[in-house]
Parts: sequence; C-alpha cells; structure tokens
Amino acid sequence: MNEPDPTAPRRRGRDRSGAGRPKLPEQKPFRQPQMSYEPTRVLSDDHVEAIHLASLRVLSDHGIDFLEADARAMLPKDGVRIDGARVRFDPAFVMETIRTCPSQITLHSRNPGHSLQVGGRAMAFGSVASPPNFVELDGTRHAGTRDNFRDLLRLTQMFNIVHFVAGYPVEPVDLHSSIRHLETTLDMLTMTDKPIHCYSLGRQRNIDVLEMVRIARGRTQEQIDDEPSVFTIINSSSPLRLDIPMLQGIMEYSKHGQLVIITPFTLAGAMAPVTLAGALSLQNAEALAGMVFTQVVRPGAPVAYGGFTSNVDMQSGAPAFGTPEYMRTAMAGGQLARRYGVPYRSSNVCAANALDAQAAYESVFSLWGAVQGGVNFLMHGAGWMEGGLHASLAKFVLDCDLMAMVAEYLEPIVVDAETLAHEAIGEVGPGGHFFGVQHTQDRFRTAFYKPLISDWRNFESWAEAGSPTADRRARELAEAFLAEYQAPEMDSAVRAELEDFTRRRVAEGGVKTDF
Amino acid sequence: MNEPDPTAPRRRGRDRSGAGRPKLPEQKPFRQPQMSYEPTRVLSDDHVEAIHLASLRVLSDHGIDFLEADARAMLPKDGVRIDGARVRFDPAFVMETIRTCPSQITLHSRNPGHSLQVGGRAMAFGSVASPPNFVELDGTRHAGTRDNFRDLLRLTQMFNIVHFVAGYPVEPVDLHSSIRHLETTLDMLTMTDKPIHCYSLGRQRNIDVLEMVRIARGRTQEQIDDEPSVFTIINSSSPLRLDIPMLQGIMEYSKHGQLVIITPFTLAGAMAPVTLAGALSLQNAEALAGMVFTQVVRPGAPVAYGGFTSNVDMQSGAPAFGTPEYMRTAMAGGQLARRYGVPYRSSNVCAANALDAQAAYESVFSLWGAVQGGVNFLMHGAGWMEGGLHASLAKFVLDCDLMAMVAEYLEPIVVDAETLAHEAIGEVGPGGHFFGVQHTQDRFRTAFYKPLISDWRNFESWAEAGSPTADRRARELAEAFLAEYQAPEMDSAVRAELEDFTRRRVAEGGVKTDF
Repeated sequence: MNEPDPTAPRRRGRDRSGAGRPKLPEQKPFRQPQMSYEPTRVLSDDHVEAIHLASLRVLSDHGIDFLEADARAMLPKDGVRIDGARVRFDPAFVMETIRTCPSQITLHSRNPGHSLQVGGRAMAFGSVASPPNFVELDGTRHAGTRDNFRDLLRLTQMFNIVHFVAGYPVEPVDLHSSIRHLETTLDMLTMTDKPIHCYSLGRQRNIDVLEMVRIARGRTQEQIDDEPSVFTIINSSSPLRLDIPMLQGIMEYSKHGQLVIITPFTLAGAMAPVTLAGALSLQNAEALAGMVFTQVVRPGAPVAYGGFTSNVDMQSGAPAFGTPEYMRTAMAGGQLARRYGVPYRSSNVCAANALDAQAAYESVFSLWGAVQGGVNFLMHGAGWMEGGLHASLAKFVLDCDLMAMVAEYLEPIVVDAETLAHEAIGEVGPGGHFFGVQHTQDRFRTAFYKPLISDWRNFESWAEAGSPTADRRARELAEAFLAEYQAPEMDSAVRAELEDFTRRRVAEGGVKTDF
Repeated sequence: MNEPDPTAPRRRGRDRSGAGRPKLPEQKPFRQPQMSYEPTRVLSDDHVEAIHLASLRVLSDHGIDFLEADARAMLPKDGVRIDGARVRFDPAFVMETIRTCPSQITLHSRNPGHSLQVGGRAMAFGSVASPPNFVELDGTRHAGTRDNFRDLLRLTQMFNIVHFVAGYPVEPVDLHSSIRHLETTLDMLTMTDKPIHCYSLGRQRNIDVLEMVRIARGRTQEQIDDEPSVFTIINSSSPLRLDIPMLQGIMEYSKHGQLVIITPFTLAGAMAPVTLAGALSLQNAEALAGMVFTQVVRPGAPVAYGGFTSNVDMQSGAPAFGTPEYMRTAMAGGQLARRYGVPYRSSNVCAANALDAQAAYESVFSLWGAVQGGVNFLMHGAGWMEGGLHASLAKFVLDCDLMAMVAEYLEPIVVDAETLAHEAIGEVGPGGHFFGVQHTQDRFRTAFYKPLISDWRNFESWAEAGSPTADRRARELAEAFLAEYQAPEMDSAVRAELEDFTRRRVAEGGVKTDF
C-alpha cells in the first residue's frame, strides 16, 4: 500500500508518550443493552392483525414488482402468480414460507467479543450509514472522502456503545464505485473489529465483501455459510418494487446464510399513503415480500424486519424524521416484527442541518420510538444529520452519549435490602444529608451515568468558561477521541491475505461500471 | 391601578390593524392529551411492593418531622406515635387513612373550557414555575421581574398545549414578598383563564389566593370547597421533614377541598440515598406522610402524588435532570402513584444553561420518563432551564413544540378500511407516488403535526437563510407570540371585585414579613 497506514493513530506529529494528552472520558465496556421492559403497544392486537391482513391483501391483489428475472424464476408455482415483473402472493403461501425465519441470529465479528445477538430482547446500535456529504468540525460541508470515512470508522471503533458498522458512515466519493466496496471493506475490517455491512449493489460486490469477511474471520466458506458474518440492508423501492441489485443481494446472501434486513422506506404522503395505517400496510407488504424471498432462497436464512416509515412536510415534500408520526410507526413496526417472530430494525434519525436543539429532540424522539418499540438492530445510531444527507463527527459523539443514556435507562433499578437503604435513611434522619454516609461512599463512583456532553456547572462558572454549548463540547470530544485512536489487533497473515485480495481485485478493475 | 394595563397587548406602539403583522402558526385547540398506551413498568410488581413496604417501614421506624405543632395536634392517637416533632405512623394506619384519596379530580378554572381532569388517563401540562432568574431573548440573565413574569404569563395563555399556570413562571423579585402573592394572583387570574397555583408560604397567603380564585370564579365559599379551583405544591424538606408553611398549606387547602400535590424533592446522593431504590423509598415515605395528613384534615380531600427523584453529579454535587436515572424514577413514581390510586405529577426539566442540544435532550428524556410513566400533571412543562434557576421565553416556545409533539404521539393510529388505503395503494401501483392521488389530497392538510421550530429546508436554502438554529427560531417565535397577546375576557364586575380585594389587601400590607 502506497499510502499512510490508516490503522495507525491519526495525529502522527503528536507526542505519543501519553504526557500532556487529554484523558478520554471513561466508558462502560462493550455490551449489548437488553430490552428490560415491555415494548409500548401503540396498536391494539386487533389493529396489528388488521394491518397484517391488509398487507397480505395488497400482495395478493396488487402484487409487487420483482425486477430481476432470476429471482422470479426461483419462485414456486404454488401460491405465486407472476405476470411480467409483477408477482402476486397468496396469503397462505406468505405465512407458510416465513415460518422458517429464525427469531434469533448471531452476527459474528472477526473479534468474537464483538459478535452480536440479533433478536429477542437484545439491542445492537450501529454507526450512521450512507450520507453523501460530510460536515467538518468547523462546519464546512462537502462531499464525503475516504479520509472522512476513516475518521468516522475510528469513532465507530472507539465508542463501546456502537456495536456495528452500519455501512459507509459517509460515502467516500473519491473512491471510484468500481472498487469502492473493496477499499472500504478493507478499511472497515482492519480499522474496526465490529460486524460490518455490505451494500447490495450488484452480485459481485456481495461476493467480494463476503470473501473479505471470510478471510478476516479465518473461516472456510462452509463455516461462514453457517455463521452470519456480514449483513445487508435491502431497501424496497417503495411503492411495491424490489429492484435488480436488491434481489441479487438477497439471492447471494440468503444463499450463504448472511443476515438480510428488509427495510421498505415508506414516507407517508410520498412513496406511501398519507395515512399512517396505510403507510404501515405498505411497509408490511414490502417487508413480507422480501422476507418470503429470503426463505425461498434458503429456508431458515437469517432475516430481520426493518421499519422506516416516516412522513413528509406536506407543504414542501421534504422528508421529516423524529416526528410524532415517526415515533408511532417505529413502535408499530416493532409490533409487526414480533407478530412474525423476527428481529426488528429501526433508526436514530433527524432532519436538522445543525447540531442544535432540533437535532437533539428529533434524535431522542427517534430513540424513544425505536427503544420503546423494542428495536433489536438500530441503524444510523451515531452521526446521522440532515435526513441522511450528511454525517457529522460531532453528532456522532453526541449520539453516543444519547445511546449510552438509553442503555443506562434500560438497566433495571436494583431493589433489595441494600439498595432500599433502610439503615442509611435512619442514620441520616430528618434534615440531614447523604453525602457523607458510608452507604453513599461505597457507591457514589459508579452510582450514576456520567454524560460525555452535558454541562452541569452553575451558570456563573459556565459563563466564565465562555458559555460553551453542547455542539462545541461534542466537537472538542470528537477531536480528543480521534487523537487517541488505536487500531484493533489483527493477525499479520490475515491482514496480508486481506490486502492481497483487495489489491488483486482492484487491479482487476473491481466491478465494471459504465462510467 | 396606576400602571399600564398588563392585559392589553404588549406592543402598544404597534399597528393593531392586523396589517403587516406576522401570522402566528396554527395550533390545535386546547385539549388534554390522554395516555392511550400502557405506561412503562420499570419496576416489577414485586419491586413496587418492596418499595411500598420499605417506605412504610421508614415511616414506622424512623418517622418524619412535622414541624407545625397544630398539624401534630390534628393527628389521631391510634396508629400514630409522636415524640417531639417526630411523627411515626403505623403501616396499617397509613393504608387505612389514604383509602379516601380520590382517584380523579376536576380542577376548575374561571373559564370552564379550561377546567382540567386530573387523574386516570388524562394529562395536563403546565408552565415552568419558580425560577429566581430570567434570561432575555438576547441572552442576558438577571433576577426575575414582574414584567418578565407577565411575558411568561402571556405565553402561558397563548399556547393551547399549556393547560395550567404551574406557579410563578419566574419569581417577580421586584414585588415585595409581603404582597407578591396578591399582585401575582391578580395577574394570573386576569391575564390567563387557566387553572392556577398558590405557594404555601404561610396560612394567610393560602387564604388570600383562595379568596381571589373564589371571586374570579364567581362562586360562594361553600361551592368552592366542593370544587377544587386552585392547587398547591407541597415539597417535603427531604429527608423526612414537613415544615411549618407546607403543613399549614395542607391544613388550609385540604380543609377547603383544594388540590394538594405532595412532591418530595429527593436528589439521590444528596437529600436521598444514592441508590435509586433507596431514593424512591424515601420519596414514597414522604409522599405517603403528606397524603395521610391531607386525609386527616379532610377525608376525600383531593391529593396527587408527586415524583421528583433525580440524581446529582457525584463530583460536584450539582443536581442533574433528564438523566437516565431521572427517566426510571419518573416511571417508577407513576407505578407507585397508581399503586395508591391517586393522580401522578412529574416534570419537564433540564440542567442546561443554554438552549442547545443538551436542553433539548434532557427535556425530551424528562418527557419520555413522565409520559411513559403515565403522568397526569406535568409541572415545569414549558420554559424551565438551568435546573430551575432560570426561566426562558425561547425555551417556553420550544417546550410547547415538544409537548405538542408528545400529545400527537399519544393520538392512536386510526386503523380502518379508509386509512388502510387498499384502493389508493392499487391506484398508485409499483413505482408511482402518492402526492397526487385523491386519498392524499383529501387528507394532507391535517395528516401530520406541523412543528413550530423544526427547520426542514434543504441545507442550501437553510444556509442561504443564514443557517438559523433552533434557539434563534424559538426566540423569533417568542417575540411574534408576545406581540399578538390578547387578554382573555373577564366580566367587568368580577374584575373590579378582584382589583378591589387586591388593593385593599395590599393597602393592609399583605402578609407581614420581618424584612
């Protein structure tokens, strides 16, 4: 490789002795939060059933376009009616076919300590994925580059609350798309040791990335086929269309037992009905069609249900995120996923252009919807801004703080004789205080979550310090974290094999494109 | 009155013809949100019971100080042990005594259309209350004045999502405390027509305010005693102390059937045990003691359970709000209140000094805790900043937007043949869009909540407009609303009687103070 090693620390000129460097805030260890409470049911059971039946009727009456002929050819005759690209499914066929969807999946990482449970009560939080633009710490916005991509990967690796790489945390548009998947996957597999995503943008890319994941994990193809080690997001082109690369992605990854997440992007009022029930019915129809196809390809193939119904601003048509409509559909999506016994994917999203109050309230409303909806797999957990049009390092840090607070909220209150503190309450008595008692002294260091961003100084001290707002603290922390990045370990032979594969495939031109 | 009429529009110099004035954003009508979903149970039923039993044991073993001798004298002999100021309650006495607490209360307003249901699934959202300081729209911070107080009252009246005046939305420190309750209550009753609060700061103030409320409602004292028309917040001095003015407040208002809200302010690690279970046990003990006393004063007196357990920063001792600890205790408080069948009070709070991302995420986390906790009565809903040390007009507007979004989230998704949109989905078909279809055209104007603050323009348009952040939009909206304030109607005879009473009591010196 003729370029600086990206897995080395970012600031090469800096004193690496440890002297004078800011100490990074402490983090809790890498661990998946568990949904300790009952998810919120925004729909009655009757209404879940009504949406379920409505979507079966959509698939039976209206059908869905499968644009890839090879995919249509794999569909059985019984229970499926094909007319050109249009595929209509009988309800009984849908329900019979998805019975083989697994309810729990292990998504393996090259570092076994970072393998994830997907399903049940387990939650996993991912980085942002796919914004075309990047906003620098000074606020400048431009098209994403590989350098930006790598900075976001560094944060993805460093924050224990980020459990997986959700995709390209920004599109590195300086890498030609014929070889982008190769170079980026090399970066993702070497600069992080967390599970990664592969874009389904044509069959060969799925094949290349799976091979790289196989190398990184040191497994045979046979082993990999039984151990989901990469995931792909399959977006239907709403309404009612699965396009060629998406169907090829399912064909390739379901065949090899990799995790496929079907996510219709159903914006109510634009690509979906303006009514939330109608948008959910369409979302569910498209999700069921995708789930069916994974099981046609390979019964038992790992698949998750993605909910991504939001609304648009009906004046301008602009998509909106983290709205009250989004919250309810995020929770309803969880109910539908559980109706089918499959893991549920949701997202942490906002439409804000700046790291201001709007960015925060839209993101927390999104998290409220996702978490109370019983999300298993949270996409765009850290760093998403502007409806997905730009990624931000500062937002990444802020989101990590938000997600860590959510994880803390999910820790059940410990209720026992010790924590009920009968003796300490008696010891302090009326009018006293608890700072000094042993019960406090024994616990105060770890009693509460310590936020990264929140500034709890009194107004005077805060004003004397220059009245720093949360966006400034987030930017400073992003700098501080990036300065301390260390690449995760990787066996040198494995690394060499990965690099050889990448260089060979790049030399071959990667995947031919017409531009 | 020798001063400008505060109920007149604020900007007298302005053209009142309506020409050239900015049109205010549309609002939904005044209406109480309903908790449509099951509240989140962060505690198992066993743990609710364990906290309940622990707090009974605290009241029986350690007891609580009742500092007012007249209050102690009202307690019965059976089931109560008194030792100096210390009062110990037998568990059976506590449970027997609180059986008469009503589960639903109507809080009457002088405008019957603004009377509130308190309890059950109904929610009511209030203004901020009690900050000593005020932050101007230009960011200047100073002690609160009556002018600031009136501006906050104007917003309280104008926003339909604010259902009651939670107290002084800022302390008007330019009014001497001997007459402050008189002048402020006149303002509250004339500048708004929503239910109001009375501070329990000595018996005579409770009497004065109740008389003014009686006049404003045009009722006899006998009628008022059966129609709760004002509420008071009773804060215990945690740990385990009810002071003289608070006990007098209960004696006066429970006797007259007014709404008493018992709210221990139990900061875990400071005035309460560092463990959340211990802090909740203390909160519950103090709440039960207050509830018991209301029922001793008058069986059936309206009372609500206030939960206000948060944590402190264990490094600095600074109180924190909207934390993961706060969220869980807010929900646990709701479970305890429902255990006793009484309405539940919580708060929308933050510790932020500026209207930045921190202010937003701490507030939304607070709302998440309160709303999923099944809150009935939300204090500090709009305008609270800096841990309650300052009130902000801009935050007031932002919070109104947040609360309106929460109210929208609580509207159940309508699921029926029309909303499921089977025909519209067929009409649009694969690859189409829904903008133009009749199903959308018939509904798009009212389909989604239109936020006040959120800026959904694309980045380029937003940057061209000067990159306005949410705090700027909130400030601009606060200005726009204040410019359009109109006082609610009031019968001129009632108004004259109210003013006469106020002038007379002010002339008498109000309530004697020693400063």
